Amino acid sequence: MMPVPPVSVVGLGQLGGSLAAALVAAGRPVTGWDVDPAARDAAAARGVRIGRELDGVVVLAVPLPALATALDDLDVAPDATVTDLGSVKTPVLAELGARYGSRYVGGHPMCGTERSGHEATDPALFTGARWAVCLEAGTELARWLRVAEVALQVGAEVVPVTAADHDDAVAAISHVPHLLAAALAAAAAEAGPLALNLAAGSFAGGTRVIGSDPEFVTAMVEGNAGPTAAALDRVLAQLSRPWHELVAAGHAAVTGGVGRRPVRVPVDRQALLALGRAGGAVTYRLAAFVEGWVPESG
Amino acid sequence: MMPVPPVSVVGLGQLGGSLAAALVAAGRPVTGWDVDPAARDAAAARGVRIGRELDGVVVLAVPLPALATALDDLDVAPDATVTDLGSVKTPVLAELGARYGSRYVGGHPMCGTERSGHEATDPALFTGARWAVCLEAGTELARWLRVAEVALQVGAEVVPVTAADHDDAVAAISHVPHLLAAALAAAAAEAGPLALNLAAGSFAGGTRVIGSDPEFVTAMVEGNAGPTAAALDRVLAQLSRPWHELVAAGHAAVTGGVGRRPVRVPVDRQALLALGRAGGAVTYRLAAFVEGWVPESG
Repeated sequence: MMPVPPVSVVGLGQLGGSLAAALVAAGRPVTGWDVDPAARDAAAARGVRIGRELDGVVVLAVPLPALATALDDLDVAPDATVTDLGSVKTPVLAELGARYGSRYVGGHPMCGTERSGHEATDPALFTGARWAVCLEAGTELARWLRVAEVALQVGAEVVPVTAADHDDAVAAISHVPHLLAAALAAAAAEAGPLALNLAAGSFAGGTRVIGSDPEFVTAMVEGNAGPTAAALDRVLAQLSRPWHELVAAGHAAVTGGVGRRPVRVPVDRQALLALGRAGGAVTYRLAAFVEGWVPESG
Repeated sequence: MMPVPPVSVVGLGQLGGSLAAALVAAGRPVTGWDVDPAARDAAAARGVRIGRELDGVVVLAVPLPALATALDDLDVAPDATVTDLGSVKTPVLAELGARYGSRYVGGHPMCGTERSGHEATDPALFTGARWAVCLEAGTELARWLRVAEVALQVGAEVVPVTAADHDDAVAAISHVPHLLAAALAAAAAEAGPLALNLAAGSFAGGTRVIGSDPEFVTAMVEGNAGPTAAALDRVLAQLSRPWHELVAAGHAAVTGGVGRRPVRVPVDRQALLALGRAGGAVTYRLAAFVEGWVPESG
């Protein structure tokens, strides 16, 4: 039976603060740190122990540019597992993998809202969300399981994935949607105020995400430039199809759904990645069926 | 002072049923008709008088393909004003303008949901919605005012527009968004089940409208093919810009907003169209300030 390690969360904004609060609520020992005293106070009020001594699963919940230096002034246990919540994984793997070797396991919960900061903390933020947890050739399976177990404990479902496959996928389902939203909005503005004035549901839905901070959006798409350009090319190819074919294909894609049925997979890198590539996820209930997996019952 | 004519609504599904119910609630005499007895019964239960004798403002609330024949078996008063709620205006103007001449005034309320049919009736459907009302060179202003007044009475705001300008505008803010949603969904499906499985907020927002009936969507974009192709070209041109420029332009477009301040305009075709082109609308409160305009006080 795998002992359940403590969790340390660095960065107590919307994602980190929500994670720490959710884990505390589940009865797990959590240490938290943030450079902002107000964020530390807010987390402490939710029962998070505040400190600079980090062990167990160390979760870096800071913006991408801060990942490389977030642990510099903190005291990290030599055997701690290090994970992060960044929205792109290949560059982070290059950076943190070089530093922490097989102790690093990349992660990316597919949630969050337009709000940010510790004021936006919500312990239910991860409930039902997909959480990509990266399995590279050099990843220690025991550490991968520890990170996956943290995600499961706060109600997420774990998608086993490589960093490269993750970045291709999020280009298609997150980064390109931001570019399409921008193009749709800019073209409508070009069409004139009459068009913007008539805009209703379909325009609002198609442009909502471009209301986010443009510097954040630009950094996100440029930080995943290759996969995003490739995914954009696939969208442009679709747009050149006859409209009746395009509409039928799009409708089928959103209404087909990914079939979900319980499967038993061994704790094996290839088997887990195959589950992820097939559109599957490890869920809390399923985890009990994964060979050798002993999840927290909290 | 302009007498307030009765309203007759043909087609008592989501749009027509909601309009008839909202007008009844406002105390206006409303006659309704639908080929479906269940729709007639539902409208009658909301106080709509059911009958085949139509006068005043006759509102055609039937699907585009049925517009040409919807009045064939009904008894329409010779001086009735005829309007419709169709999502494209130039082809309808060609069809109904040829038949009813200056008695026809095109309209298009920018609302409705994925639901349809009389079960989806909601008297509040038009509250705050924009309602395009077409002013062509041959439109009688007195009839235009009668149609606009119906829209205002159910809580909509009236955008004066020509059929051609309307079709260009809705291409940009409704028809192209459907094509982009289809392309985004189809390209993500091409990327594989892993991508669809990680999809969260930005993908759901960007693809929501393609969940609608594909035959309806195809008919809509093909019914406005020229303007939609031109609007799609403007989106493609935007997508070829450097990403930081594209993101900044898109963000500015959705956050800039159209300035709204009360203006007084004469009841004059050019003045009303200029108001519409500038992103303005006639609102219930403003209507009192439009020279010669005497809106219902209900």
